Amino acid sequence: MLTATTISVADEANDSRLRLVRSAARLVHAESYHSVGVKAICEAAGVQRGSFYHFFPSKTALMLEAIEYAWKEFDRDGLDACRDQSLTPRQRIEGLVAYLFECQHGDRSRTGNVPGCMFGNLAAEATASDDEIRLRLLSAFDDWATAIEAPLAEALSKGDISIDRSPGDTAFAIVAELEGLITLAKVHNDPDIIRSGGQHMVDRLWHARETRP
Amino acid sequence: MLTATTISVADEANDSRLRLVRSAARLVHAESYHSVGVKAICEAAGVQRGSFYHFFPSKTALMLEAIEYAWKEFDRDGLDACRDQSLTPRQRIEGLVAYLFECQHGDRSRTGNVPGCMFGNLAAEATASDDEIRLRLLSAFDDWATAIEAPLAEALSKGDISIDRSPGDTAFAIVAELEGLITLAKVHNDPDIIRSGGQHMVDRLWHARETRP
Repeated sequence: MLTATTISVADEANDSRLRLVRSAARLVHAESYHSVGVKAICEAAGVQRGSFYHFFPSKTALMLEAIEYAWKEFDRDGLDACRDQSLTPRQRIEGLVAYLFECQHGDRSRTGNVPGCMFGNLAAEATASDDEIRLRLLSAFDDWATAIEAPLAEALSKGDISIDRSPGDTAFAIVAELEGLITLAKVHNDPDIIRSGGQHMVDRLWHARETRP
Repeated sequence: MLTATTISVADEANDSRLRLVRSAARLVHAESYHSVGVKAICEAAGVQRGSFYHFFPSKTALMLEAIEYAWKEFDRDGLDACRDQSLTPRQRIEGLVAYLFECQHGDRSRTGNVPGCMFGNLAAEATASDDEIRLRLLSAFDDWATAIEAPLAEALSKGDISIDRSPGDTAFAIVAELEGLITLAKVHNDPDIIRSGGQHMVDRLWHARETRP
């Protein structure tokens, strides 16, 4: 039978677990996967290092949950624009670009550094020994492309855009282009690369021909 | 006065130094910057760990030379296509795409893994504490864009392409797009993403409108 005490212990455990996941996501995004150790994650989470393995069998297992945590946030806050039926298809893609810019711009304002895309950073770091992480990222990038595919398909059916591949293949290419822009924004420590490059990508898709500076 | 013995000692030191640079470039590209330690680099180079700091003041200093080494190779073997005046501007860009594909394809054949772009991987891993590395990468990406700018400018002057930004800005966007394709090729462990995505990018620039599968 559950008592108030057992519920409270369970709540505390759940809370420690969640703090570890959040700290891992935050630290790894700000620094990198291999440079952030279990010790630093435990310290940031305020969890005893000795109890880490009570919650997770390995750092990889924690990282998989941290990716899941970051993905849910991106899906809710970033990809939501792509699903907003009150917007035109073009506005939906522009909303995603604006979100990506705002995230990197906000991080730079707070820390001085453009951190880049957590999923892209992890993909760059993932090696043969991190194949579980690579496969989780693959699924995230696929879901990202699927969210972009819907407004593209709608724009295509309305005759607003002309693309020479399927909406799915075009969405995949858009994800690649955005990832590359985020990488160069990180290299230049300049989030505006995402805004200007992303806007140009949207203009190109919608055949807007105005010259931009 | 130099004697045969001092020359021989100097040669051996230069050889050890070069082996450290090569090993660092190879290991970090295959794995990642933070997961590869000085010990592993020394072992791969066949250099005593104790003499590492005789050659380099820090791992960062070694990494800067490893980037220089990898950049020279890429500049010579990859960007050479962009400068080949016996080719049309379009063929020059296609030559670069083919090189990027072949590198990742070759590595996957040998190791089972698409390693991604060494410069992009390091950019993803570079943090506030690695600002020297970030700035060296920035210079590499700028030089890469400059190499692409020349054939674009030539194609523009011949009327072969129509772009709505300058050749320089377009070259910058091409580098971003190629980097993103290489990241997704690494995530999917499929180098063909570079070949097909890169070819589509070239077709788009040259306004080829044939539908590809």
